[in-house]
Amino acid sequence: MRAINEITITDAVLDQMSTTPDPRLREIMASLVRHLHDFAREVDLTPEEWLKAIGFLTAVGQKCTEFRQEFILLSDTLGLSSLVNALHDKRALESGTKSSLLGPFYRQDSPALPLGTCIVKNPKAPVIGIYGRVTNSDGEGIPNALVQVWQPDEEGWYDLQKNDPQDMDLRGSFRTDAKGNYYLRTIAPLGYMIPMDGPVGDMIRAQKRHGYRPAHIHFLVGADGYREAVTALYLSGDEHIDSDTVFGVTDSLVTEIRKPDSSSPLPDLPCIHFDFALAAKTAQDLSGRVGADPSQIIKKAAN
Amino acid sequence: MRAINEITITDAVLDQMSTTPDPRLREIMASLVRHLHDFAREVDLTPEEWLKAIGFLTAVGQKCTEFRQEFILLSDTLGLSSLVNALHDKRALESGTKSSLLGPFYRQDSPALPLGTCIVKNPKAPVIGIYGRVTNSDGEGIPNALVQVWQPDEEGWYDLQKNDPQDMDLRGSFRTDAKGNYYLRTIAPLGYMIPMDGPVGDMIRAQKRHGYRPAHIHFLVGADGYREAVTALYLSGDEHIDSDTVFGVTDSLVTEIRKPDSSSPLPDLPCIHFDFALAAKTAQDLSGRVGADPSQIIKKAAN
Repeated sequence: MRAINEITITDAVLDQMSTTPDPRLREIMASLVRHLHDFAREVDLTPEEWLKAIGFLTAVGQKCTEFRQEFILLSDTLGLSSLVNALHDKRALESGTKSSLLGPFYRQDSPALPLGTCIVKNPKAPVIGIYGRVTNSDGEGIPNALVQVWQPDEEGWYDLQKNDPQDMDLRGSFRTDAKGNYYLRTIAPLGYMIPMDGPVGDMIRAQKRHGYRPAHIHFLVGADGYREAVTALYLSGDEHIDSDTVFGVTDSLVTEIRKPDSSSPLPDLPCIHFDFALAAKTAQDLSGRVGADPSQIIKKAAN
Repeated sequence: MRAINEITITDAVLDQMSTTPDPRLREIMASLVRHLHDFAREVDLTPEEWLKAIGFLTAVGQKCTEFRQEFILLSDTLGLSSLVNALHDKRALESGTKSSLLGPFYRQDSPALPLGTCIVKNPKAPVIGIYGRVTNSDGEGIPNALVQVWQPDEEGWYDLQKNDPQDMDLRGSFRTDAKGNYYLRTIAPLGYMIPMDGPVGDMIRAQKRHGYRPAHIHFLVGADGYREAVTALYLSGDEHIDSDTVFGVTDSLVTEIRKPDSSSPLPDLPCIHFDFALAAKTAQDLSGRVGADPSQIIKKAAN
């Protein structure tokens, strides 16, 4: 324990953490320490660089508020969020719609709306429709499934970025009908830059990344007994569809706004047609939620 | 880029970061992403666990103030700070005194005191002496070297934990004499628990670690042309000398309080005798400072 050098330090830490009663916490922390130390050794990290990292992480934490989650943004831009989503999808026993990033703008309390309602209070762009079915992995419709949707406006802004937090817009919660159908009205969102006024923005600029996300509409779809699908639909043709700053785009989530079609529940509107497939919940599913309401994280962090 | 799964995500991130102009930043971030992703894959990190980690890191950042650096404490308890010190010592071209943790209580503005002064305003324990030489790696004394010292009191508290921040105690800055000698009066410190009222304390409790540091006295020793030595002297016999929560103890830094000795510059006092050896600064030394004044980090983070 006393002859600590740049090699023996790792076993010294693992030894001191070996008393952890919870086996999963012990496993996670042991792996974290090994990889963290391997990283520091691999790059021969200097005290000055370590200090910059401490200052950066401190700034990330201090940028967080009830309505801004800079650590999730950091996780997103490092590809960690997307990786955790992919691991989550892989653990499913049935195939379902792929996960995509929850992002920092989800809110648990979006208004419950009847099917067909427009989620935009004062649309300043042409109204489009989104419709489809929520099914199980065999393609059977799931009635009364909860479909939560949220998105930015035609200029790329979410309500939380423009309005008083009490004034919700561009979001809503729907329930599928008896056959599992959902349909709603909205506008086509614009892609946008991630928030660049914090330390994560500084990092993105230092890496000469463009900072944009391609246009997308967020969905959180759930029903009793099924894994929640936290996902997003991306609009094909966006110039950043192949270079998303937070690595959320997957081929199966890229959609198109198609011409009005008489077979649609919204036959007069250009529409996105997308069916969500939910995998059955497994015993291993500790939690179906891929991501979280930032206000809840801050509240937990404050306790 | 679009066929992202739990394996291909890593190359997608590295590819997007490959535009980083600064080669060292590019190298560090690439290594960090590879190790971070390997960690997540190795433990098959779940969304719920990821969310707990986000909440934990947010809480660590929000616990930081001008006088409390919880991220340094996290780095210390994970052994990262000690590892960075060991890597720093290894890069030296000459052997010098080993580094030890700066800790969160260093202040740049401690009072300049004449040699022999007691750094404790109202000693409530027997006064002891500390003396020795500051030398180069050949053992030649360095005149006018700056010796900064700070420590907790006989109950294990630093001034910043007890007093108004304006009211400094238990710290001072000395200059070596023409032969490189230093000597000062103080009291023997007590070991103490790291601050346990924040998220790092929660982690330590969850791991059933005792949270104690053995008794020690911090030193920051510097002179023009030499690497700064950020180190600490540990008192042998402390019950936690072999299980320091932050992995700062090295054999060569363990000292004893010896009986009064006529050869000492403080012949009437029990004394610690320790010589500091400074290695010459190398061209590779970006910065000699192992650690930092937390108030500076917060100020930087706020900009």
